[in-house]
Amino acid sequence: MKRKSVAILAATGAVGQRFVQLLENHPWFEISVLAASERSAGKKYRDACAWRMETDMPKEIGEMTVVNTDLKAVKEAGDVDIVFSALPGDIAGPIEESFAVEFPVLSKAAAHRMDEDVPLLIPEVNPEQLELIPIQKRRRGWSGFISTDPNCSTIQMAMTLKPLMKFGLKRVVVTTMQALSGAGYPGVASLDIIDNVIPYIAKEEEKMETETKKILGTFDGERVRPADIAISASCNRVNVKDGHLEVIYVDLEYKPTIEEIKEAFRNFIGEPQRLKLPTAPERPIIVRDEIDRPQPRLDRDAGRGMSIVVGRIRSDPVMTIKYLCLGHNTIRGAAGAGILSAELMVAKGYI
Amino acid sequence: MKRKSVAILAATGAVGQRFVQLLENHPWFEISVLAASERSAGKKYRDACAWRMETDMPKEIGEMTVVNTDLKAVKEAGDVDIVFSALPGDIAGPIEESFAVEFPVLSKAAAHRMDEDVPLLIPEVNPEQLELIPIQKRRRGWSGFISTDPNCSTIQMAMTLKPLMKFGLKRVVVTTMQALSGAGYPGVASLDIIDNVIPYIAKEEEKMETETKKILGTFDGERVRPADIAISASCNRVNVKDGHLEVIYVDLEYKPTIEEIKEAFRNFIGEPQRLKLPTAPERPIIVRDEIDRPQPRLDRDAGRGMSIVVGRIRSDPVMTIKYLCLGHNTIRGAAGAGILSAELMVAKGYI
Amino acid sequence: MKRKSVAILAATGAVGQRFVQLLENHPWFEISVLAASERSAGKKYRDACAWRMETDMPKEIGEMTVVNTDLKAVKEAGDVDIVFSALPGDIAGPIEESFAVEFPVLSKAAAHRMDEDVPLLIPEVNPEQLELIPIQKRRRGWSGFISTDPNCSTIQMAMTLKPLMKFGLKRVVVTTMQALSGAGYPGVASLDIIDNVIPYIAKEEEKMETETKKILGTFDGERVRPADIAISASCNRVNVKDGHLEVIYVDLEYKPTIEEIKEAFRNFIGEPQRLKLPTAPERPIIVRDEIDRPQPRLDRDAGRGMSIVVGRIRSDPVMTIKYLCLGHNTIRGAAGAGILSAELMVAKGYI
Amino acid sequence: MKRKSVAILAATGAVGQRFVQLLENHPWFEISVLAASERSAGKKYRDACAWRMETDMPKEIGEMTVVNTDLKAVKEAGDVDIVFSALPGDIAGPIEESFAVEFPVLSKAAAHRMDEDVPLLIPEVNPEQLELIPIQKRRRGWSGFISTDPNCSTIQMAMTLKPLMKFGLKRVVVTTMQALSGAGYPGVASLDIIDNVIPYIAKEEEKMETETKKILGTFDGERVRPADIAISASCNRVNVKDGHLEVIYVDLEYKPTIEEIKEAFRNFIGEPQRLKLPTAPERPIIVRDEIDRPQPRLDRDAGRGMSIVVGRIRSDPVMTIKYLCLGHNTIRGAAGAGILSAELMVAKGYI
Repeated sequence: MKRKSVAILAATGAVGQRFVQLLENHPWFEISVLAASERSAGKKYRDACAWRMETDMPKEIGEMTVVNTDLKAVKEAGDVDIVFSALPGDIAGPIEESFAVEFPVLSKAAAHRMDEDVPLLIPEVNPEQLELIPIQKRRRGWSGFISTDPNCSTIQMAMTLKPLMKFGLKRVVVTTMQALSGAGYPGVASLDIIDNVIPYIAKEEEKMETETKKILGTFDGERVRPADIAISASCNRVNVKDGHLEVIYVDLEYKPTIEEIKEAFRNFIGEPQRLKLPTAPERPIIVRDEIDRPQPRLDRDAGRGMSIVVGRIRSDPVMTIKYLCLGHNTIRGAAGAGILSAELMVAKGYI
Repeated sequence: MKRKSVAILAATGAVGQRFVQLLENHPWFEISVLAASERSAGKKYRDACAWRMETDMPKEIGEMTVVNTDLKAVKEAGDVDIVFSALPGDIAGPIEESFAVEFPVLSKAAAHRMDEDVPLLIPEVNPEQLELIPIQKRRRGWSGFISTDPNCSTIQMAMTLKPLMKFGLKRVVVTTMQALSGAGYPGVASLDIIDNVIPYIAKEEEKMETETKKILGTFDGERVRPADIAISASCNRVNVKDGHLEVIYVDLEYKPTIEEIKEAFRNFIGEPQRLKLPTAPERPIIVRDEIDRPQPRLDRDAGRGMSIVVGRIRSDPVMTIKYLCLGHNTIRGAAGAGILSAELMVAKGYI
Repeated sequence: MKRKSVAILAATGAVGQRFVQLLENHPWFEISVLAASERSAGKKYRDACAWRMETDMPKEIGEMTVVNTDLKAVKEAGDVDIVFSALPGDIAGPIEESFAVEFPVLSKAAAHRMDEDVPLLIPEVNPEQLELIPIQKRRRGWSGFISTDPNCSTIQMAMTLKPLMKFGLKRVVVTTMQALSGAGYPGVASLDIIDNVIPYIAKEEEKMETETKKILGTFDGERVRPADIAISASCNRVNVKDGHLEVIYVDLEYKPTIEEIKEAFRNFIGEPQRLKLPTAPERPIIVRDEIDRPQPRLDRDAGRGMSIVVGRIRSDPVMTIKYLCLGHNTIRGAAGAGILSAELMVAKGYI
Repeated sequence: MKRKSVAILAATGAVGQRFVQLLENHPWFEISVLAASERSAGKKYRDACAWRMETDMPKEIGEMTVVNTDLKAVKEAGDVDIVFSALPGDIAGPIEESFAVEFPVLSKAAAHRMDEDVPLLIPEVNPEQLELIPIQKRRRGWSGFISTDPNCSTIQMAMTLKPLMKFGLKRVVVTTMQALSGAGYPGVASLDIIDNVIPYIAKEEEKMETETKKILGTFDGERVRPADIAISASCNRVNVKDGHLEVIYVDLEYKPTIEEIKEAFRNFIGEPQRLKLPTAPERPIIVRDEIDRPQPRLDRDAGRGMSIVVGRIRSDPVMTIKYLCLGHNTIRGAAGAGILSAELMVAKGYI
């Protein structure tokens, strides 16, 4: 198979760098265009980008010239089959729309997540939302389309809630301890976080409470009806580089045993696993039995950063059960999510 | 007033050092005996103790000779009116009993907290539990007695729950982010906590779930009937030196406005404030209105470490309200708690 | 004595906030004007400033209106006897000159430090450089003047080198481990420093190597002849909030014993101590004998942040001796330095 | 080639775990015996060991039964061709001797490093010290022998000093900023290192000053004459998980240009590279040209943790040049060093 050509918008930022890293040697995709703001346009990627990954920048990518984040500039710079957008939320909206007229746009930004005709996709959880794509194209008259990945802290929680739906999921209380990399770069000032916790992340609680209902909603052939769940989130920033840790309390209509819950987590697989997509982890959810796991530094790289690790599953005196959930926020929660979504679309013929 | 003579058990440990620090220049108390394990006994305090406070060790205390944690040794070492015990939980039980035959023992250990005839005291919250003292003395035939302070993470939560009782407190879900100093010294290994969170603290969740009901219970003249509240706790260790941060979700029978909740917090005072006890903070609970407070490093020293700081009080989609609560775990949560309790006992004539 | 009126330039920044904190209840000075950039001008200080000190903002200061950093605006805003400048190095030069035409300007910026007629003052070390003030005023035709404090890491090293001069100081090698607050706010990104050291601080090594020679130089009645010392500095940023730690190796012509070195440190006092200036620490240099001190968190507040703490003084196989030196970089290294300098000028009649 | 059977002493500790991790899928070696203290003996490795590596414990290793650190017990447990010792320094001496009577013992402990007839080996630097092995065997009447790896902070410095020898290396001043993992587990208490630097590591400075002279010494066919270099070390512990950073100042007899120094570093290779040993990094020393590298978190994994990264090479006002040097302390500085040494011995026929 000829590899698909990929353009990355906001390629020099934290998520953009992670896209570049994860796409190195990808069997289906190759980077053809790197776009960023005017300040970077015209420079070699190696000069435009303050590379912060622990692995070296791929040599040939470093030699590529960055172009402006502009439809015309991107088209002139190379072939494009797929556009990954890591644009900041405040400017992503109209730029992504301009690209979607011609190209599939897979976005990490919040701008279009709650649009009625836009998928809010987690490949293992709700692949049926891909059916919104033809509806969107028809309605908007586009050759391309927009599909979105949820917020990082939402993705990992939603992946663990999905297998609990069959027990009659009614109410969710979640407290997060989120990593620094979730705030981008430079992001959180070191003086703010040393010997400290910051108990507030702008718009994060609203995203978790709203997006989850769409993700777990029901697609009726026309639209997604939000899941009938009450969700309360409290989001905190802790002094951890990567890996969001979440304490989740759920109220379930039926009263499964702890072992039934574990089985539901362990047996959970989805389309990516059935289709053996290149970026799909063997196990979307890994259950750890140790008393003190998951931990961010020890578990964030499970499944090459694409598995969600749960642990401390136990009965709850107020709700039904409580447990911990950990995911790598810039892999499963960002660039890896986009790549897995693209793989699913290719496999299903949407791209 | 002649100052009362104080013996400190486990005086060289982390909480013991905090007692020494806080008792410097105390108007009512003076340290007469420092007791520790056999390894330290016979040495000067300055040599026996790896002092870790940010203020200097009081000079004259450094010159005192440490004695063995043994009733006879302590009595020979000096006058004793009050015994503060910072003993480790696993050995505290019988040692404290041996001292209580003759002396008032104020304990930071868990050993006797749930004993039916032992106060589990927070001076602002349940001073009526002091009435267990004569019952205990009579029942056990002691000249002295044992009174206990709750677990550190429990104290600060219970102080904020008390003023919510009038709104019909039914259910509490709490997620903690606790400081390193709560684990004592050496406590948490740096290799375990760097770039990490440890989502487990042995016995901590059980303590929060159990002790709170006794603290908020009703004293009927004979015993304490536990409060009829369901409590679920999840306890985590984060990379913070001092100051436990807690995310609290409460379900209330009546539905107060946010402003009524704030008023209840702001107006909350207790016996220590009415009696103007030396260690009592002017305001037991401080309400902060900023979107991102309280924070451990910025707020833990409020009221010289004796105030609890709450913030982000808001409606909750699952429970009734949620809010944050922060306290200094080795001052209000340990040594300061013991001293305030002793002050209340002196003022009320129990010592 | 009527208190002198003080204007602070760049009052909302990290050093500016420290000035506000340290000047609360100062016996000689009171803040009359707070100046900052246009973005802040016109706002109340409480609204213009993201206050980051661990103590509360003084209430009445919070109510003051910030004015633009402009001579006219400052003069209209209130009486001014002294101007403290915490301006960023790149804009400080001409602005400070404009104020110096009329007022004494005490600057924390690098812009004028190496000017021939400008003092580079450490009150305990080189009070004779104050005699440059009349020379400067005459030469420049100003009613006011500019005096500068050295770079933070330079101040603390120079204070320890001064008493070593009598042993024939020839060569100095210094490696620093500097605190985050030295980079201002937001300064160092948390993603850069977590689990890391950044072995480079722009222009810092040059400042240490150059400024020290002027500080320790000889004033001949007309100018300062730089000290004839070779200095090599390597500067590193470590994950510490406040307090620069420096490893210093010195080559001395005469070969004092370790005890003679300690005596020289312990006996070192200067004009601020003789004059009992309000901000002067009792001991400018504190010698600690423990094997593992000074440490930033334990020793930075010595002498209310105005003492330098040295330790681990020992013979050196390559140079003559080596030792550690620690100072609070935003107190003795910045705002406290400026205030002590101003106190010295008042006491000596320069203001 | 049949793989050599390897016994690991102190297999459950921090360095022991690293040996297990690095030996997974090793082409020449396979683990046959895991030995540890009596507390662990008899348990499965998975139960005896609190595994702390970020990668999973190899499954089949987890099932192995740990035996006591005793010659007889080890021999009964399996075939042994090589013994890796990660024993604590205070007990390593006699135990290693008991094993060396029969087996090659490659030790990470300090006990025998300075023994006249024991190699202090860095494969790239001084492979000629292997010739001490037959001398040692003859003198001690052993079938086996002891060979040692230097202290972690010494290895990386010595590797960078070796190519500077040709410029007439005379004097070295080094200040280290060392990682937490160098202290083993539990090692440094989190309360000691948060917001802090600990400027003392027991015996570390002496090791750097002494071992380096033997490493860089001259083997005359009988013994190693120490290099005639003056070395001064100051060792500090910083809040970094892995990777020692060292600031090195060297005085050279000849005055090479910076470019000549860089060339010397870049061109440095040794026997491991010529022999293409499995664990040998392609480049023992990597020169980085960025102004702010090497950094521990970004560079410690270079060459799979076996390369030393240098940077900021510049002229020095006091010595001749100064530079930074970074190495992974538990790979190149410990377990990886032992494995590379063993590979060299196998290739050279010593095992």
